[in-house]
Amino acid sequence: MLITPGKLLAEINSPQDLKKLDQVQLVQLCDELRHFIIDNVSVYGGHFGASLGVVELTVALHYVFNTPTDQLVWDVGHQAYGHKILTGRRESFHTNRMYKGISGFPKRSESEYDTFGVGHSSTSVSAALGMAAASKYLGLEDKQHVAIIGDGALTGGMAFEGLNHAGVSDTNLLIILNDNCMSIDPNVGALKDYLTDITTSKTYNRLKDDVWNLLGKLSHFGKNAQEIVSKLENGIKSTLLSQSNLFESLNLRYFGPVDGHDVDHLVAVLRDLKDIKGPKILHCVTVKGKGYGPAENGNATTWHAPGTFDKISGEIHKKVHETPQAPKYQDVFGNTLVELAKQNDKIIGITPAMPSGSSMNIMMKEMPNRAFDVGIAEQHAVTFSAGLATQGLIPFCNIYSSFMQRAYDQVIHDVCIQNLPVIFCLDRAGFAGADGPTHHGAYDIAFFRCIPNMVVSAPMNEQELRNLMFTAQLPRSEGAFSIRYPRGQGVMPNWRTPFEKIEIGKGRKIKEGEDLAILTFGHIGNYVVEACQRLSKQGINPAHYDLRFAKPLDAELLHEVFSSFKKVITVEDGCIQGGVGSAVLEFMAEHNYQAEVRILGIPDEIIEHGEQLDLHRECGFDPDGIITAVKTMYAQTVNVKS
Amino acid sequence: MLITPGKLLAEINSPQDLKKLDQVQLVQLCDELRHFIIDNVSVYGGHFGASLGVVELTVALHYVFNTPTDQLVWDVGHQAYGHKILTGRRESFHTNRMYKGISGFPKRSESEYDTFGVGHSSTSVSAALGMAAASKYLGLEDKQHVAIIGDGALTGGMAFEGLNHAGVSDTNLLIILNDNCMSIDPNVGALKDYLTDITTSKTYNRLKDDVWNLLGKLSHFGKNAQEIVSKLENGIKSTLLSQSNLFESLNLRYFGPVDGHDVDHLVAVLRDLKDIKGPKILHCVTVKGKGYGPAENGNATTWHAPGTFDKISGEIHKKVHETPQAPKYQDVFGNTLVELAKQNDKIIGITPAMPSGSSMNIMMKEMPNRAFDVGIAEQHAVTFSAGLATQGLIPFCNIYSSFMQRAYDQVIHDVCIQNLPVIFCLDRAGFAGADGPTHHGAYDIAFFRCIPNMVVSAPMNEQELRNLMFTAQLPRSEGAFSIRYPRGQGVMPNWRTPFEKIEIGKGRKIKEGEDLAILTFGHIGNYVVEACQRLSKQGINPAHYDLRFAKPLDAELLHEVFSSFKKVITVEDGCIQGGVGSAVLEFMAEHNYQAEVRILGIPDEIIEHGEQLDLHRECGFDPDGIITAVKTMYAQTVNVKS
Repeated sequence: MLITPGKLLAEINSPQDLKKLDQVQLVQLCDELRHFIIDNVSVYGGHFGASLGVVELTVALHYVFNTPTDQLVWDVGHQAYGHKILTGRRESFHTNRMYKGISGFPKRSESEYDTFGVGHSSTSVSAALGMAAASKYLGLEDKQHVAIIGDGALTGGMAFEGLNHAGVSDTNLLIILNDNCMSIDPNVGALKDYLTDITTSKTYNRLKDDVWNLLGKLSHFGKNAQEIVSKLENGIKSTLLSQSNLFESLNLRYFGPVDGHDVDHLVAVLRDLKDIKGPKILHCVTVKGKGYGPAENGNATTWHAPGTFDKISGEIHKKVHETPQAPKYQDVFGNTLVELAKQNDKIIGITPAMPSGSSMNIMMKEMPNRAFDVGIAEQHAVTFSAGLATQGLIPFCNIYSSFMQRAYDQVIHDVCIQNLPVIFCLDRAGFAGADGPTHHGAYDIAFFRCIPNMVVSAPMNEQELRNLMFTAQLPRSEGAFSIRYPRGQGVMPNWRTPFEKIEIGKGRKIKEGEDLAILTFGHIGNYVVEACQRLSKQGINPAHYDLRFAKPLDAELLHEVFSSFKKVITVEDGCIQGGVGSAVLEFMAEHNYQAEVRILGIPDEIIEHGEQLDLHRECGFDPDGIITAVKTMYAQTVNVKS
Repeated sequence: MLITPGKLLAEINSPQDLKKLDQVQLVQLCDELRHFIIDNVSVYGGHFGASLGVVELTVALHYVFNTPTDQLVWDVGHQAYGHKILTGRRESFHTNRMYKGISGFPKRSESEYDTFGVGHSSTSVSAALGMAAASKYLGLEDKQHVAIIGDGALTGGMAFEGLNHAGVSDTNLLIILNDNCMSIDPNVGALKDYLTDITTSKTYNRLKDDVWNLLGKLSHFGKNAQEIVSKLENGIKSTLLSQSNLFESLNLRYFGPVDGHDVDHLVAVLRDLKDIKGPKILHCVTVKGKGYGPAENGNATTWHAPGTFDKISGEIHKKVHETPQAPKYQDVFGNTLVELAKQNDKIIGITPAMPSGSSMNIMMKEMPNRAFDVGIAEQHAVTFSAGLATQGLIPFCNIYSSFMQRAYDQVIHDVCIQNLPVIFCLDRAGFAGADGPTHHGAYDIAFFRCIPNMVVSAPMNEQELRNLMFTAQLPRSEGAFSIRYPRGQGVMPNWRTPFEKIEIGKGRKIKEGEDLAILTFGHIGNYVVEACQRLSKQGINPAHYDLRFAKPLDAELLHEVFSSFKKVITVEDGCIQGGVGSAVLEFMAEHNYQAEVRILGIPDEIIEHGEQLDLHRECGFDPDGIITAVKTMYAQTVNVKS
């Protein structure tokens, strides 16, 4: 079902078409754009609230600025649907986030209007400043560079690093603060309070008013007072208004707050700002989900990416299953954490702005004094956890695999060099699916495995996840413990199994076999179970071992494998370079085993978005791919034997 | 030569002894502590200016707070010499930074007074906040937590992440801003300007004074005016003073600025602050190198870590060499970059606060509009570079190997996923030496090798570094190019060789040999040259290949190696897990080669500080270790043959 755009929108194939409209038509265009997004997302799914919130801003930006020469950088990119639709992707928009379709985020290779690929937060100021500095160096004085960043993304430290540089840069940089008080979950931290303050007049505007009133009233007190007013007005007014603002402290001219849903006013403001040289910030107040009642008035987190829904009733479609389903791994994590925390009062939960995505919200609700959402701040989350650990507490720090890249130094420098017992739970490890390459958790096995004092584990199912979490929180004085698991469902509808300690560094044999052994790490092992069942019907019987730990490796298990098998396949939902297969090769070299080894995993290239199974198939480690690999290796055996 | 401490200092073996002093004696103690540091560093070397700058602060903190129950967290840790000397390490202080001696940074395993290990910047707020949150949870209401952070470290984004959380935390956290306008090099950015402003009264204090004056003068205008004053005073004064401050914007109570060299006043202020609950910041103005004329009045960067010097004349000792010496790799980088930039006007240089450490200062001086010091902000440095690259420029982003850990996500997310041609130069790759584990560049080969669209190279000497840099800036539309090189000297006194293009992914044969091949990566290959020379005298002749590229690997070279040799040793100054040796094993597995492979490199443990050669010896890959490894492998050949 292709969505029909409104009359104006149907004619807009690029911002050049948009610029032909009369300004008075923009309100209607916004309306059409909003409905086009609602219609599409309700049918095809995708991110929702963020794009609705910036419809007017998107239209105004492309109306005023000379894109793609002028550079728009969308932070995170959840909110760029309107931008995509206006820049030549209206007709392909129904393929959004689908395998081989357009990306859910801005992407350089997709369009010249997508100046910078995003997905992770807080990069836009740095990227746009780099562009602006380049333009300055190249003498392109009229070229404009705009970073559009949310108040949530602004809590990420690198945004501050960018602001600190921007403030002394003398470049054509406009930062648009899209302030909706939200990340995916409600925004947290002191900055949010500050922004709310200056927006709602509670402090900033009271101060402004106080002084205005003072100066106003003084004029009633005769000539002397008027003289003072006149003398002080210039000085105090400008000083006060500039210095009383956090952004002005950083030497960024601050404008706003303005209503981010008044497209007319936005056009006027942006036109004015275009003529003001130097780094500046425009504070826009917007509402996530604006213009769609259920989203605007309902739970903004739910409507961040609601899946498909009935656009009339606002009812979000839920799959109905006749049989009990396996839970999501994240929910096993969230519930198990609370179970463990009830037994062990040293346990603390930490999430950097992902309470609902990680299911840490369960603990935040049940034990509000023991679970911290620290904002989009992975670096701080890790070192804060290290600080907690120094005082004898047991932090479970939950960070998506790809976001853990943001806190890599902190894991090495603050946790592992000090050998502190922090537990890292890496959700979304392996392919993230529709979110694509920025969100794929492809590298964590490699980048964690090389760090000393780090346990690297992965559960093959819900029970294993529970037992790894249980094991990690048992009295240990030292060392980090990481547990990686994928996005999505596990395999056990009855998952609330009793806790059992797992010996650290111990794998398990899943099945006996002949001639060839398959070693797996984590949930992907279930593909091998399926493959082996299908292979056995054809009389092919490889052995299957679940390593459970990429580090420390199970030496006993591996000695058994390499003593018994000359053909080994390793399978992991992670990069081949430096991953589990590589660890197995290192073991072989150390013990001088000779065997033929085939490593299945993510190859050395950027894999795009799509359903996880599609991506596994593309990389050759879906059940079919595994079967092919096994048969190929067996065939070589036959060849050698013959 | 053991340094004799002053009379008071000689009696202080812990802060308990310090607390026995009368407050009036503290000035003398500060004097003695300062001289003890000067005496020690002048003879034994080490960091200098930073510790002199916080002598009074250090004494006041241990005098007022109940350490080690109260927690002091020193950011970076260059400045903690006084702290070490007062906390039981006076007599071992002469072993500072020496192999098996005490660490140059706070270190948990060294002392209970070292609450949190440091070395990298900007971690203290997060760590201390974690401790404070733990104390709050544990009901330890009187426990104090103090982060001491410089104005340079405050530019690091994670410090801001910590402040954003601290402002809403309701914990006993005191942040002491040690404001000396310096990182190792002069601090940069908008924040620095702001701090200078509020310190020097230029803006903040003018504002304060304006209002004070206004209120004061108004009282002369009769009863009505006085009423207004009285009415407004409370409101406006508090509002104005709180809101006009960046830190108060983040809900941190701000105190100061105070003179950080007035120990008496510091003691009084800290006593007051101890009784004020909640997160707060004390702004101390200090002078790096305070109390030692040549450092205080000279170049603060030079006196950051001057090496040994004559304390009377202030003359820094320089080694005199009779023969021409090989240059430092960093200087080859710095000079070569300028040479290339003169030929190629697209080249831009970027350093995050390491202009002198990386020798980027050469370009900053010669081409100030083409070289950026972006502050302690590795994340921003990388994404800013990516932004420059999108506009067709060629950024050389120089970051120490261990600091690159800070920007890992930006390398993946902003550079490699987008396949942008950013050139990364990783100085201090391999063992950093006296700075120890926080600064060892142990992991970069493993953590870069797993990223697609990334070239991983290392020069074996100066000429190779120049040619790799030359190659990297040649027209290429895509892909990151990394070049890692160690701290310290190369091997070529005549290093200004003409530029020559190197084919990407091509290694080279250093020498032919028999039965056994040694594959090396980078400068460490020179050890193998030495080892082979010594071995040849004993009639042992392994082949030696310089891989040059860990990625892409030289397939032709490796096919030659594994077709000709059944015994292979790989040597790298990096972690064994996932490193170059591991890459070679992956190649073998892919092509089904069977050979005995021994990987020499940094083992899976934290290696402490010391001279690089000591550490290489400890890990078994100094020339002696390499010779032993070769002989052992040859011996096994004999065994097999016999």
